[in-house]
Amino acid sequence: MTPRNWKPIIQEFERAIGKDGVIQRKEELLTYECDGLTSYRQRPALVVLPRTTEQVAAAVKICDRYEIPWVARGAGTGLSGGALPVENCVLIVTALMRKILSVDLENQRVVVQPGVINNWVTQAVSGAGFYFAPDPSSQIICSIGGNIAENSGGVHCLKYGVTTNHVLGLKLVLPDGSIVDVGGEIPEMPGYDLTGLFVGSEGTLGIATEITLRILKTQESICVLLADFTSMEAAGATVSDIISAGIIPGGMEIMDNLSINAVEDVVATGCYPRDAVSILLVEVDGLQVEVDANKKLITEICQKNGARNVTTASDPEQRLKLWKGRKAAFAAAGHISPDYYVQDGVIPRTQLSYVLKEIEALSEKSGYKIANVFHAGDGNLHPLILYDNSVPGALAEVEEVGGEILKICVKVGGSLSGEHGIGADKKCYMPNMFTETDLETMQWVREVFNPKGLANPGKMFPTPRTCGESANAQAQKKFEGVDLF
Amino acid sequence: MTPRNWKPIIQEFERAIGKDGVIQRKEELLTYECDGLTSYRQRPALVVLPRTTEQVAAAVKICDRYEIPWVARGAGTGLSGGALPVENCVLIVTALMRKILSVDLENQRVVVQPGVINNWVTQAVSGAGFYFAPDPSSQIICSIGGNIAENSGGVHCLKYGVTTNHVLGLKLVLPDGSIVDVGGEIPEMPGYDLTGLFVGSEGTLGIATEITLRILKTQESICVLLADFTSMEAAGATVSDIISAGIIPGGMEIMDNLSINAVEDVVATGCYPRDAVSILLVEVDGLQVEVDANKKLITEICQKNGARNVTTASDPEQRLKLWKGRKAAFAAAGHISPDYYVQDGVIPRTQLSYVLKEIEALSEKSGYKIANVFHAGDGNLHPLILYDNSVPGALAEVEEVGGEILKICVKVGGSLSGEHGIGADKKCYMPNMFTETDLETMQWVREVFNPKGLANPGKMFPTPRTCGESANAQAQKKFEGVDLF
Repeated sequence: MTPRNWKPIIQEFERAIGKDGVIQRKEELLTYECDGLTSYRQRPALVVLPRTTEQVAAAVKICDRYEIPWVARGAGTGLSGGALPVENCVLIVTALMRKILSVDLENQRVVVQPGVINNWVTQAVSGAGFYFAPDPSSQIICSIGGNIAENSGGVHCLKYGVTTNHVLGLKLVLPDGSIVDVGGEIPEMPGYDLTGLFVGSEGTLGIATEITLRILKTQESICVLLADFTSMEAAGATVSDIISAGIIPGGMEIMDNLSINAVEDVVATGCYPRDAVSILLVEVDGLQVEVDANKKLITEICQKNGARNVTTASDPEQRLKLWKGRKAAFAAAGHISPDYYVQDGVIPRTQLSYVLKEIEALSEKSGYKIANVFHAGDGNLHPLILYDNSVPGALAEVEEVGGEILKICVKVGGSLSGEHGIGADKKCYMPNMFTETDLETMQWVREVFNPKGLANPGKMFPTPRTCGESANAQAQKKFEGVDLF
Repeated sequence: MTPRNWKPIIQEFERAIGKDGVIQRKEELLTYECDGLTSYRQRPALVVLPRTTEQVAAAVKICDRYEIPWVARGAGTGLSGGALPVENCVLIVTALMRKILSVDLENQRVVVQPGVINNWVTQAVSGAGFYFAPDPSSQIICSIGGNIAENSGGVHCLKYGVTTNHVLGLKLVLPDGSIVDVGGEIPEMPGYDLTGLFVGSEGTLGIATEITLRILKTQESICVLLADFTSMEAAGATVSDIISAGIIPGGMEIMDNLSINAVEDVVATGCYPRDAVSILLVEVDGLQVEVDANKKLITEICQKNGARNVTTASDPEQRLKLWKGRKAAFAAAGHISPDYYVQDGVIPRTQLSYVLKEIEALSEKSGYKIANVFHAGDGNLHPLILYDNSVPGALAEVEEVGGEILKICVKVGGSLSGEHGIGADKKCYMPNMFTETDLETMQWVREVFNPKGLANPGKMFPTPRTCGESANAQAQKKFEGVDLF
C-alpha cells in the first residue's frame, strides 16, 4: 500500500474541529501512546479533540471517507488497552467535552458530555443530597465516556451495580458518522436496548457524546467496618455469611497480608494490622436504624468467624481513614515493586478460597509475588503481580501468570473481566470463555455497526492470528503500510 | 405465489418434535389465534410444541429452510400482541418446556426452561428464604420466556428493576437455527451485552430456551400502607415526597375513584373508601428496624399531604387484603364494562398531575370512561378505557383514545410502553418516540440476527404502510398468497 498523504486530511480535520483541536507534532503525540496499560505503546498518526457532537461526527466522517482507523479515548486511565492507538490511526479524544449539560434533581437525571470526570457528577449534585454511584478507584481522573466504554465498576457496585445500571440514554456518533439517540430520560424505553448494548462495547460501535445518567439520593447514614483475620478462609466465609444473612453492603473488600504491608509501608494508615493474614472492609449504608442494625449483625458474623478485631467508623473522617489503605493499594504496589501487573477476573463468591489457593500456587511456581486485593462481595479479584520490567522477559512471564489466573477464573464459572474490559490485553482469552458461535454472534453486532472495521480495530475480539503475537501488532496488521506523511 | 404444500413440512416437524408436539387441526388451532390482546386474531398454519433446545432449533431450521414465518409464544398472556400469529406462520409454543433445570441457592441462581410460570420460580426457592423479584400481575399464569420477550415489569419493579435486571444468561436459538449462549452465571461478562439486547426483543431475534435468573433473599419484614386522598394531586405529591425523602419502596401504586369503586363492586375489599378521589398503596421491605422507620416516615408524609386515613399492615394476610383490590383492578374493569382496553405508558413522575388531567379531558371529549391504575413510583400508567365491543366502531375509537394517551406520554418525555411491549399494537407509535435514524439503527440489529425476516415479522417496528391499516394485515403482507394446504 502506498503511504497515505495526510496533508489534505489534516486540513479537513482542522476545518471541522479548529486548528487548536488537532495535534500532529510527534512530541505532543507521545502523551497518547498508551492508556493505563502502559506495557503496550503505539503512537497515533493524529490526535483530534472535538468539543461537540457535530465535531465528533465530522471527525468520524472524515475517517470513514478516507478509511482511516480511529480509536476513541477518554481520560486514558483504562487498564486493558481499550484506548491504545493502532498504527496510523486517528485518536479521537473527548477530553475537551467536559460540560455538565443539565441537572434534573426531581427526576434524578444528569446529562453530561463524555469528557466529564466521574466524580464531577457527584460534586455537581452532592449539595442537594444526591450522588452518582459507580466509583472506580480512578474516579478523580477517569471520564464518564471511558466508564461507558468499559462498563466500569468500583467498590460500591456490589449494592448499586456497574455503570450500565446507571446509564439511561446516549447520544451516539456511529462509525458512519450518523448521530443517533438510544435510550432516553426514563428507564422504560421500547425497542431493543441499544443503550445496554453500547455500554461496555469498548469503542467498537461508536462514540457517546451525550450521556444521561441516573443519580441516587445520598444515604442518611454510612458505616465502615474493618475486621482482621488469621486466615483467608475466615474472611471469605464472613463475606458469604453476610450475604446469606440477607444484607447487601455498599461494598465488601478483602486485602491479603502482602497488600496490607504494602499500604502500611506507603500510607501508614495504622489501622491495618501487619500480622493479619487478611482484612475485610465492609461498608453499609441506609437509614440510621438500618445501618445500626446491620453494623451489629455484621460485627457478630465477623466474630463468629474468628475476627481478632472489628473496628467501626461512622463519621466521614474516620471512614476515610479505614478506606485509605484500600484506596491506596494499587499505588502501594507500585512503591514496593518496580512494576506491577493488575489482573481483573471474576469468580462465583463460593469459589474464593479455592481460587486464592491456586493463585498462591501460581505465585510460588512462577516466583512472582502476588498481592491480592478484591471486591469480595461480587467475587471480583484484582491480583497484583509484582515484577521488574527492566528484567528481560519478565513482562512476558508476568502476562502468562496473569493469563493463568484468568483461566482459573473461567474454569470455576467466572469471567475474564469484572470491570476493566477486554481491550487489547485480554482478547486472546475470549475463546476460553465463549464458543466460536457465541463470539461470531457478537461479531455480527460489531460488523453491522462498524462494517468497515475502522472503529477501534483489533480490540475485544480474538482473531486467529492474534494469540502468540503482540496484541498491538495484530491490531495494526489490517492497516500496515499506511504511513504518516 | 402458489399455495404452500404443507404436508411434507408437517411430516418434518413431526419427525423433529414428535406427533404429539404438532397441532394442525383447525379447531385446536383456535386457542392460538391471539394472546392477551384479544382484539386482534389470526389463526396460525401450524402450532409446534418443542420440549428441548434441540427441538426448538430443529423447528426453527425447518422454518428457515422453507422460509416460513414463525412466531414464538409463551403462555400467551402478553397485552401488546407480541405473540399474535401472522398468516400462514408456524407458532412455536414453549408451554411444554416447563423444567426448573437447576437451583444454586449459594450463588442465588436458578436456571429454567422458558415455559416455567413466573411464580413457580419463587415457589421453588421460597422455602429456603429466596424469591424472584419481577412480578407482573399475571405472574400465576405468565411464563418466564414471555417475560424475557417483553421485559416484563410488575408492582415491585420500582425498587428491584424489571426482568432484564434479573436475567444473567440465556441459551438462545437464533433465527438460522444455531444455538448460542449469551451472558452466564455471573453478572460481569465481557463482550457485548447480548443478554440485555435479547431481553425485550419480543421474539424478533430468536427464542430463549434456557434462562439463568438471579434470585433475591426474602426480606425480613414487609409492610403495606394504604392512604386515601380527596385529590389526585395529593397522592401524586405524596409519591414525590416519599422518593425525595430517599425512601425507595418495594412498590407504590395509585388508583383513582373509578377503579376504587370497580374493585369494591367486584371483590369488596372493604379497605378502599368509595368516596376517595385516589388511594395510594405503598409497600416497604427490609430489616424490621428499617421497615418500622420507613412506615413512620411515610405515614407522616401522607398526613402532611392531607391523607384522610393511613392504614398499615404487616402480617401476610392483612397485607394481601390491602393489595387485593389493586391486584383485581383489571379484572374488575371487565366486570363493570363489557370490554376494556388497557394502555401502558410511562411518564416522568413529575408530570403525573398534568397527564392525568389530560387523560380526564380525553375521556370527556371521547365519552369513554377511563379508570386509572398505575405504578406511581416509576410513572408507569395503566389507563383502562371502558367500552362495548358490540358497538360498531367502538374499538377503533378506543384505540384512538389509547393512542392519544401515548402521544401525551411521549410529549412530556415519557415512553410508549412500561412493561407490556410494542408488539402488533403499538408499532405505529414508534415514530412518535424515535427518529428515522434511531429506528433504522435498531433495524440493523434485527436484520443481522434475522436476515430473512422470518422471526415474528411485522412486530415492534413500523413500516411505511403500517399505520392506517390493521397492524395484523400489515404483518401478513410479506407472506400473502402463501396458503394452507
